[in-house]
Amino acid sequence: MSRDARPPEFALIADFFAPLAADRPEACGLLDDAAWLRLEPGRDLVLTTDALVAGVHFLPDDSPDLIARKLLGVNLSDLAAKGARPIGYLLTLALPNAHPDWLTRFAQGLRQSQETYGIALFGGDTVAIPGPLTVSAAAFGWVEAGRMIRRSGALAGDGVYVSGTLGDAALGLQVLKGEIETEEPGDRSYLADRYRIPQPRSDLGPRLIGLATACADISDGLLADLGHICEVSGVGACVQADRIPLSKPARNLPNRDSSVLRAALAGGDDYELVFTAPPANEAELARLSAELGFPLTCIGRIVPAEEGVTVADSNGRALEVESRGYVHFGMSTPENGAATQG
Amino acid sequence: MSRDARPPEFALIADFFAPLAADRPEACGLLDDAAWLRLEPGRDLVLTTDALVAGVHFLPDDSPDLIARKLLGVNLSDLAAKGARPIGYLLTLALPNAHPDWLTRFAQGLRQSQETYGIALFGGDTVAIPGPLTVSAAAFGWVEAGRMIRRSGALAGDGVYVSGTLGDAALGLQVLKGEIETEEPGDRSYLADRYRIPQPRSDLGPRLIGLATACADISDGLLADLGHICEVSGVGACVQADRIPLSKPARNLPNRDSSVLRAALAGGDDYELVFTAPPANEAELARLSAELGFPLTCIGRIVPAEEGVTVADSNGRALEVESRGYVHFGMSTPENGAATQG
Repeated sequence: MSRDARPPEFALIADFFAPLAADRPEACGLLDDAAWLRLEPGRDLVLTTDALVAGVHFLPDDSPDLIARKLLGVNLSDLAAKGARPIGYLLTLALPNAHPDWLTRFAQGLRQSQETYGIALFGGDTVAIPGPLTVSAAAFGWVEAGRMIRRSGALAGDGVYVSGTLGDAALGLQVLKGEIETEEPGDRSYLADRYRIPQPRSDLGPRLIGLATACADISDGLLADLGHICEVSGVGACVQADRIPLSKPARNLPNRDSSVLRAALAGGDDYELVFTAPPANEAELARLSAELGFPLTCIGRIVPAEEGVTVADSNGRALEVESRGYVHFGMSTPENGAATQG
Repeated sequence: MSRDARPPEFALIADFFAPLAADRPEACGLLDDAAWLRLEPGRDLVLTTDALVAGVHFLPDDSPDLIARKLLGVNLSDLAAKGARPIGYLLTLALPNAHPDWLTRFAQGLRQSQETYGIALFGGDTVAIPGPLTVSAAAFGWVEAGRMIRRSGALAGDGVYVSGTLGDAALGLQVLKGEIETEEPGDRSYLADRYRIPQPRSDLGPRLIGLATACADISDGLLADLGHICEVSGVGACVQADRIPLSKPARNLPNRDSSVLRAALAGGDDYELVFTAPPANEAELARLSAELGFPLTCIGRIVPAEEGVTVADSNGRALEVESRGYVHFGMSTPENGAATQG
């Protein structure tokens, strides 16, 4: 854009980013004004965009390759939630400076994610800003025509499912901040990595087409993201707290009854999928879970809208949940019920 | 992304941005993780992204609607240069604050451009940053399969054409900064608007398919953008300075011989198209110019790569042009020739 910035930008593109586009002739070597893309007939494109800001979405001392992997991870997670198979992305970097070492490691992180998820860089823009490092990607993938999984398809009677385990990322952030201590070897790095490196469920999403009635990724927290599904679908949900899948490192934490459940219900950044499916699909989902090698757990059910989004403990008593997911333990009664989320 | 920022972001989406997506069911009301898009068979998608930073790409006191129109203008200009018909865009806003009045006027600017160019908002992301306002869009359009106009197709013997008039935006910026004075009524606002509100040549671009061998938009300046075409195409170009089309307000300026030609050759932000076409297409381009109502002017020709990118005055003498487009007047001789651009 800026005349003065162009020549260094061109060198920067050639040095760091053109190699990430080399496998896709559609990207024109990042030497053109735009890229092109051809879908096979009968396919729809799926488009999403997410930005990360230093100090807000990643820790200021996170290494550049982790920032790159997180950026692609959060975008690919949105595609996965829609059942889309990823194709590629456009990249926008707003850099307070452009140190070659930083760019080299950032590009290495992009490459690692590209190889993991089979995607390529199709284009982008780089601007200099006197502010925090801000990175943004617009990612795109494909689904069979008309099959994108929406947030809006949940029906009363459907089961509420989640992939993997919940709360790990929020606990990992607390571990990194020194707010909680792990006891078992390896638990610290497991939880920290769950925060720092989102692993989008790109293998799962496309397999949910035809099985799930609605889906979202868990970026804001289970209750928030399930709340979004319920709001758009015009339904409520009842979640059973003791069914929420927890990782072994989460279960190893000494104070699991409070902070762990809170992280699982309200912690963001897990980038697991929450989806709804009719009871008839239960066996097929069990087979899919076995095939993919990670749990798909039914944690509750969809109810009529007037019942809201509630969480019950193992005795069937409603836990009081504040609008932002904060859980009060032992303070609610069945009479006053649980606050509605969303 | 950020848990704490979500609920206000949702309100912000509903209040300001969802109305901009209302006409396209593919955008899911901006209530889903992603949007979908179906192209008719035989069409390719064309994708581009550009970001604007306050203080770098627009003046800090520019009104929000102008910033919005500039953002979409620069992105649609890239699509136009590829011969693409625009469809829509994803929007990323990094806001130091989110004043409702600012957002209202920004959204009004988006709507104005949407109506002018027949596009819609398909999705986006909003993040808070403690830095300058940064706005980014990823725009997409379509061309008939395989017909995207590349930068790489220019051939020796082709004519070099530009649309409209050149230099107005750079002169407009100088007028706004008080560096030059206009004399005729209306000239100031004409030139200032050319800088502040890029008018992408969305009507022209798709009509150049089958006529132009290469095309780019003039965002960095004629010599820079023609230089990019030449570099990627493996050719050179000779531009005749006295053929460069100038607007009446530019010609009205008292010091036209120096600053005006410099603005026309090296000033950016005009967002006209520079393209190459074989001599056989000259008559067809003249008819197209008459139909569209603005000039398509042949300003030179494509030459072998070893001749570089040069500018000649009305006597056929080479003007010395520095690598960034700075023109020396009366300092060059035919013997030492002109510096190569690109």
